[in-house]
Amino acid sequence: MLTMQDALTRLTAYWTDQGCLVVQPMNTEVGAGTLNPATFLRVLGPEPWRVVYPEPSVRPDDSRYGENPNRLQTHTQLQVVLKPDPGNPQELYLGSLAAIGIDVAAHDVRFVEDNWASPALGAWGLGWEVWLDGLEITQFTYFQQAGGLNLDPVSVEITYGIERIIMALQEKTHFKEIEYAPGVSYGEVFGQSEYEMSRYYLDDADIDANRRLLEIYAAEAQRMIDAGLPVPAHSYVLKCSQAFNVLDSRGAVSTADRAAEFGRMRRLAGEVAKLWVGRRTELGLPLGTIDALEPARPAASVQTADGERTLVFEIGTEELPPAELRSAREQVKRLLTEGLAGTRLGHGEVRVFGTPRRLIAVVPAVAAREEDHVRTVKGPKTQAAYGADGAPTKALEGFVRGQGVTIADVETEELAGVPHVVVRKHEAGRAAPAVLAAVLAQVVTGLRAAKNMRWNDPKLAFSRPVRWLTALWGDDVVPVTVSTLAAGRRTRLLRTAATPHADIASAETFLETLGVNGIVADHEDRRELIVIGAQDLVYPDGKIDVKGEAALIDQITDLVEQPLPLLGTFDESYLSLPDAVLTTVMRKHQRYLPVRDVDGALLPMFVTVANGPVDVELVRAGNEAVLRARYEDAAFFYRADRETPLATMKSHLDRLTFTDKLGSMADRARRIAALALAVAARLGFVSPVLDRAAELLKFDLGSQLVTEMTSLAGVMARDYALHAGEDRAVAQAVYEAELPRNTGDALPATLPGALLSLADRLDLVAGLAGTVGLPTGSSDPFAVRRAVLGLLAVHRATPALAGFSLVDGIELAAAAQPVPVEASTLTAIGEFLAKRLEQALTEEGRPVDRVRAVLPHFSRPSVADSLLGQLDDALTDPGFRAVATAVQRARRIVPAGTPAGYDAAVLKEPAEIALHDAVTGLRVTGFSDISSFVASTSPLVEPVGRFFDEVFVMADDPAVRAARLGLLATVRDLGEGLLDWDHLRM
Amino acid sequence: MLTMQDALTRLTAYWTDQGCLVVQPMNTEVGAGTLNPATFLRVLGPEPWRVVYPEPSVRPDDSRYGENPNRLQTHTQLQVVLKPDPGNPQELYLGSLAAIGIDVAAHDVRFVEDNWASPALGAWGLGWEVWLDGLEITQFTYFQQAGGLNLDPVSVEITYGIERIIMALQEKTHFKEIEYAPGVSYGEVFGQSEYEMSRYYLDDADIDANRRLLEIYAAEAQRMIDAGLPVPAHSYVLKCSQAFNVLDSRGAVSTADRAAEFGRMRRLAGEVAKLWVGRRTELGLPLGTIDALEPARPAASVQTADGERTLVFEIGTEELPPAELRSAREQVKRLLTEGLAGTRLGHGEVRVFGTPRRLIAVVPAVAAREEDHVRTVKGPKTQAAYGADGAPTKALEGFVRGQGVTIADVETEELAGVPHVVVRKHEAGRAAPAVLAAVLAQVVTGLRAAKNMRWNDPKLAFSRPVRWLTALWGDDVVPVTVSTLAAGRRTRLLRTAATPHADIASAETFLETLGVNGIVADHEDRRELIVIGAQDLVYPDGKIDVKGEAALIDQITDLVEQPLPLLGTFDESYLSLPDAVLTTVMRKHQRYLPVRDVDGALLPMFVTVANGPVDVELVRAGNEAVLRARYEDAAFFYRADRETPLATMKSHLDRLTFTDKLGSMADRARRIAALALAVAARLGFVSPVLDRAAELLKFDLGSQLVTEMTSLAGVMARDYALHAGEDRAVAQAVYEAELPRNTGDALPATLPGALLSLADRLDLVAGLAGTVGLPTGSSDPFAVRRAVLGLLAVHRATPALAGFSLVDGIELAAAAQPVPVEASTLTAIGEFLAKRLEQALTEEGRPVDRVRAVLPHFSRPSVADSLLGQLDDALTDPGFRAVATAVQRARRIVPAGTPAGYDAAVLKEPAEIALHDAVTGLRVTGFSDISSFVASTSPLVEPVGRFFDEVFVMADDPAVRAARLGLLATVRDLGEGLLDWDHLRM
Repeated sequence: MLTMQDALTRLTAYWTDQGCLVVQPMNTEVGAGTLNPATFLRVLGPEPWRVVYPEPSVRPDDSRYGENPNRLQTHTQLQVVLKPDPGNPQELYLGSLAAIGIDVAAHDVRFVEDNWASPALGAWGLGWEVWLDGLEITQFTYFQQAGGLNLDPVSVEITYGIERIIMALQEKTHFKEIEYAPGVSYGEVFGQSEYEMSRYYLDDADIDANRRLLEIYAAEAQRMIDAGLPVPAHSYVLKCSQAFNVLDSRGAVSTADRAAEFGRMRRLAGEVAKLWVGRRTELGLPLGTIDALEPARPAASVQTADGERTLVFEIGTEELPPAELRSAREQVKRLLTEGLAGTRLGHGEVRVFGTPRRLIAVVPAVAAREEDHVRTVKGPKTQAAYGADGAPTKALEGFVRGQGVTIADVETEELAGVPHVVVRKHEAGRAAPAVLAAVLAQVVTGLRAAKNMRWNDPKLAFSRPVRWLTALWGDDVVPVTVSTLAAGRRTRLLRTAATPHADIASAETFLETLGVNGIVADHEDRRELIVIGAQDLVYPDGKIDVKGEAALIDQITDLVEQPLPLLGTFDESYLSLPDAVLTTVMRKHQRYLPVRDVDGALLPMFVTVANGPVDVELVRAGNEAVLRARYEDAAFFYRADRETPLATMKSHLDRLTFTDKLGSMADRARRIAALALAVAARLGFVSPVLDRAAELLKFDLGSQLVTEMTSLAGVMARDYALHAGEDRAVAQAVYEAELPRNTGDALPATLPGALLSLADRLDLVAGLAGTVGLPTGSSDPFAVRRAVLGLLAVHRATPALAGFSLVDGIELAAAAQPVPVEASTLTAIGEFLAKRLEQALTEEGRPVDRVRAVLPHFSRPSVADSLLGQLDDALTDPGFRAVATAVQRARRIVPAGTPAGYDAAVLKEPAEIALHDAVTGLRVTGFSDISSFVASTSPLVEPVGRFFDEVFVMADDPAVRAARLGLLATVRDLGEGLLDWDHLRM
Repeated sequence: MLTMQDALTRLTAYWTDQGCLVVQPMNTEVGAGTLNPATFLRVLGPEPWRVVYPEPSVRPDDSRYGENPNRLQTHTQLQVVLKPDPGNPQELYLGSLAAIGIDVAAHDVRFVEDNWASPALGAWGLGWEVWLDGLEITQFTYFQQAGGLNLDPVSVEITYGIERIIMALQEKTHFKEIEYAPGVSYGEVFGQSEYEMSRYYLDDADIDANRRLLEIYAAEAQRMIDAGLPVPAHSYVLKCSQAFNVLDSRGAVSTADRAAEFGRMRRLAGEVAKLWVGRRTELGLPLGTIDALEPARPAASVQTADGERTLVFEIGTEELPPAELRSAREQVKRLLTEGLAGTRLGHGEVRVFGTPRRLIAVVPAVAAREEDHVRTVKGPKTQAAYGADGAPTKALEGFVRGQGVTIADVETEELAGVPHVVVRKHEAGRAAPAVLAAVLAQVVTGLRAAKNMRWNDPKLAFSRPVRWLTALWGDDVVPVTVSTLAAGRRTRLLRTAATPHADIASAETFLETLGVNGIVADHEDRRELIVIGAQDLVYPDGKIDVKGEAALIDQITDLVEQPLPLLGTFDESYLSLPDAVLTTVMRKHQRYLPVRDVDGALLPMFVTVANGPVDVELVRAGNEAVLRARYEDAAFFYRADRETPLATMKSHLDRLTFTDKLGSMADRARRIAALALAVAARLGFVSPVLDRAAELLKFDLGSQLVTEMTSLAGVMARDYALHAGEDRAVAQAVYEAELPRNTGDALPATLPGALLSLADRLDLVAGLAGTVGLPTGSSDPFAVRRAVLGLLAVHRATPALAGFSLVDGIELAAAAQPVPVEASTLTAIGEFLAKRLEQALTEEGRPVDRVRAVLPHFSRPSVADSLLGQLDDALTDPGFRAVATAVQRARRIVPAGTPAGYDAAVLKEPAEIALHDAVTGLRVTGFSDISSFVASTSPLVEPVGRFFDEVFVMADDPAVRAARLGLLATVRDLGEGLLDWDHLRM
């Protein structure tokens, strides 16, 4: 059996063979190997660096007294840094797994999107978690920034979680059982320390002492920065971080502290980074610098065909995130289509496929050459081209010389009405490969992701590195080069293939070659394989909810190149955990499809989708072990939570930051509760259920399970509340307070739930709009947009709220924020609400004109809803149409700003007097529904028609004109406040 | 080339193969691998433990900005702990050297006594430095105590100094040049950190901040102890230690602080240790326990000879310290001689030999059996043995039954004048092997050293482990067993021999077998080989001062089994360093013999003595490199010191503790200066030279060179003072202040020097006697005995001091101590002085009676000296003899306590009146020299003689008797204060 210490030795040896230095762990407590100066400082600046080292990583928050099978306050990382990116770090990494005896072809090894950021270090990078049969064993990151500095070159950071890898390899279910060395278990060596340090971090560390330590460390760090010594300064920044983590695990970090400390650490780390770079430069960069990669040379351009051939262009990448893959497919299609449109090359329709590792464009029937073409080159005006004597002027001579022609070649053409000399140039169409090379290069350089990164290429930036290009027109390589990449006919296959690459004979055989090698290029094909394959596996025991899991299946589809669904099982005993816990673990953490029986009850099985031809039994067993560990974890938390009084969990909310400026989650829960009760009071709603639910609100955020799986907030609240003996209605209300969690989610069914939900979202929107602003573009980190949609949905779904204005609610919420919210912000929120309501209603298929007509009621969306329903009927009602036509007619004629009053004495014509009478005879104004409006205003229809027929409004006599306009303005205003008549199309 | 990281890897792999766990370095700064809990905690308690780990060891005091070629603030230790002692740790260790490519047979690898103690940890152990061709590469320690607890089992700790080993293997002269990894130097990787951390530790660390850290850490350590959590407590003890070290390197530790902090750390470490042991017991000793080794079974006892044969007994040890080897030889001789005397075995003279690895006793002509013997067993008194009827009593019956004889067997014998019944038992002599087995076992168990240790043997204790026994009587094995050891005929040879053991055919061939295998058992033989060999090597260039180096040669002789003198050279440029520096390095640090030319000037060469048949060129080159590094170091310090103002060096004395209670060296220097000036004032001696020398006194203790080589104190003071432009006489005085440094050393030649020297020793004696007490037995850690001898020697050598009393001096010095010195202590010091003077004078060959006669003058030893000289003459002078006889006669007759007065009127006899007249006619009393005493008292000779002849002192008349005795008492007192007449033999 491979012991843990052997694994460390072998991995270290492997990376040493790859040119890595071995250094020692940091001799002060760190939370991760990244903090060791061998990473944090060395990734800065231009010097090369390759290093491997173990790092006992201290996470006070993960202290569990050694009881939790998978969680330790100190775990062992093996850290590798490759600077610069060697171009094949994934392959090197897979080699390291082989070095510890992992058969990467038999196992399912996957690179699953996981980006990394450390706000306290001003550092971030893009990369993956590496999964071994569903188990996260490694963090793989392309470092982009550290200490606030952009990194050039980019470093690759590979962080192995040694305990987890070893538990998997040794098939252990508790870390203490790991065989650390021959005959010696991990628990025997580290168990006592794990318990005692947990005691220190959770129970016994002196808070005041650690606060003072934090201050002293920070002061020393600053002093060392001032002294120009980044190394000791960095060491003190690390000590700051540890002291902070201790305080945090002791529950002694207030929201204000957290924000301030993160800010301070970020600032210190930034200064350390700058100093380091400066010092290295002063020292003459002792480790040298790195030559940037040379631009690629294009393949020789050979054209062997005259007829139409297929173009295939493959952009080979490292594993793209599913969302980026979707976007990239669209981009390639657009860029290539536009690019081809800019040529004179005949071609068929552009189709684009994609897998995590490749984007493939296929264009049939691409002509061998561009069409020939006559181009007219404009010369001087004819008048200026020839002298009075008809001899060519110097201007003309210069022109023909410049064009490489003779005077005999010029013609005359009238351009914009003025005769000019011109030259006609007959240009032969360029050969397809040359034309395509330029177009395809633009496709690559044009690719952009939501988050872009750099790698060893000096010019490119994308979601993940682009590693190869394959470009064929028929049999010929399209000689496209992009920065350091030159296209060829070689594509790459699955990394685990016997020969992990293939040379493509012709574009027409490309997809076939991929297919033969197992790679399914088309998303839809893969999806179908997954859906059918998964369903077949579970038949006849259960079924996959294909529709319900559509988003997950889409994601899975874009995580694999060659989908291989596998059925796994888990112990039935775990079915005693809440459904939501089980499925959340499966979906969110593991991307497994849950399996249900015909009644919809969960079965103790799951479907996972492996990538490529793995050892099925091995991968199944691995995934089952992972799920077991996860469920064991969840069960551990669940049991612990159920033993914890609700008030205790709620008290933990003090330790959770909502945002820097908006206080803790406890603050937020207090605001929401108060707001819900205030709204209830306005509605005259008195409810002990609401009172109690408001007290409990969000308590489950302080539970261990929800800390782990935040998406279970509300669900667990209900479960724990019931378990604690709370009233069923109260439990329901705390659950409903979190609804809807996303578009299409269930909505509160009870008024207490609805009020809490509404208050929650009002608080969130008002607070965030008042601090970070309303979301723009795609960036919406706090999901304000979703909250607004929730607000609208809850209001619309809760008739009892119809009388309550969301704008009023926002104002109430704004007043309760710990920061002032400007009036202009309230206005902006209103506009945002209206816009979202318009969008929601139109997306539901309501005609945009009607939607806009009811939009003045955005603040009470249920009112808008109801009006919209009435409108549907009204628009087929001649009575309404007549009134509406009258009103709109009046609106069109009366200039804006004209008041609705008039001097009735001036009116003389019978038609205008009749209208005056009708108007004054109306019984009601300020209508709130359409039928009463129609009923009330129908007497006007005839007089208005007559008025328009018989009266010339714009009379010469100003007084008469004013009176007539005033009369019409009165008509205009009849529907004011009911609908926005401007938008209503009749 | 073996890179540093390869060396770490290979050593780790080697020890892993020996069953060691690999753990990580401590994640808080430590000064040594010993502090890592994997050593400090794990050596406690009964659980087994084997571990290997690297430990970057932080020594703020060793900060040198990376400039010094051999000294780093952070160096890399590789730490190995073997618990229990595996029985062959040295052999395992040698295997590890082979694992990194060191040919231990070609190199000169030696185990040189080096004991280890950490007062702050309450820890100590015995062991060695391991030398590789003269370079210390490893610390090898048998841990005896940690945290104040005795360790059982004992652990072996092996600590490699990786940088030093690698510098030697790679032949680098600066640590920065080490090839750390292929193509990457140590300086490139760690140079900047070395500089910056040096800056922090030496210049920039905030003293107040570190003081506060120290307090917080100590408080947290105590809190964790109170909470029963040894692991976090230990971590905080380590942090205390680091904070303390930072303060120390910043010169911010006062003497009081140091004592207090060491005390606190020792207490905390002790509590941590106790807690740990308790917790492990509570946890059920997760790693199990160790079975003690079984007692050995003796070899079968076979006796094959009837005649006399030689006995040879070898006690095989690990390398004994030379001083212990000397003592052990004597012990073996005594124990064996006494043991044999307790038998009835005929034998020749016991001879004992020894090398570092063996003690050998050889006894020729040991008889095959003990002589037969009749033993008389004493029974009851005859009177009690038989009844009145002559029948045996029950007492007699019981006796014969007990002796297994019949009544017929008893005889009668007068014992102490009383007739008893006795039984005669004829006992056959036992066979030699059986008799010898018991005697030899007693020899082994009786061995004791000044410092004894335990190893894996459950019962034995000695200076170093005893690993084997060889015992032969003639051809036969003597079946001796001692604890786990059983003697056989196998001895061990040099560890590097092709076969490192040999079976001995017979005792008579034992020494020959050793000799054939290169081992020279006899100290004298080895010494001669060294002396002759060394001198031959340097002929005709120079010579070894055999007489001057006798102590060193004796030491070297006991460091080797097979001496191989080698000549090495060093660069002539180093001859510019002071002579004392060069020779101190050679002698003290390297045990090299200096070589001088015929004029006594040092030549650039040295003789080292290797052990066994090494690769001469390799070992020579290695030793030369070591000496070069040492001289380079010394030159570095020397240059730095010469650039430092004397006052700056002197200011460093504040940082040097003298003793906990007696303050810093600066305090001590101040006291000495004041005392010297006070004594000078008493003598009426005014001297600007003394004033200035007193100011500078001991400044060189603050120099880097003397910090490294304390034995150069004074020598460097003179050198630096001259270099700084001080008056030559001042420089000489600060040098002489340190004289004499040992018995036979030069003495101050100038009065300023003598005064300072005297004051120095007075201060030391008064202060230490007043705090730790005067030395008793062999323990004299502060060399008080030497100081007293110095006091006497200086006084005797300085006529100008004759008038000054040392007792007065001690009183003055005592009054200046920071602690009160009791009157009884002053008395004890006086007695101690007298005793030492008596000893010194008798050792100089003066007759003890005369010495004792002058001893009343111990306080002014030069007076005693002078009287002693006069006595030599006087005792051949009839005048003196006559007076002395008279005085002594008077002393003998007059009872003690009789006053010297008398009533002259009572005297009647002419003889008594004549004496009375002579006495009253004396012109002088209270003599201070013998000639004046004789001159003055000669008129008494005749009257005294007459008095004794004619007068009966003890007259019946009490008044007469009193007057006569009073008259004689007057005579008796004539020489009072001059000599102690009681002791003077005539």
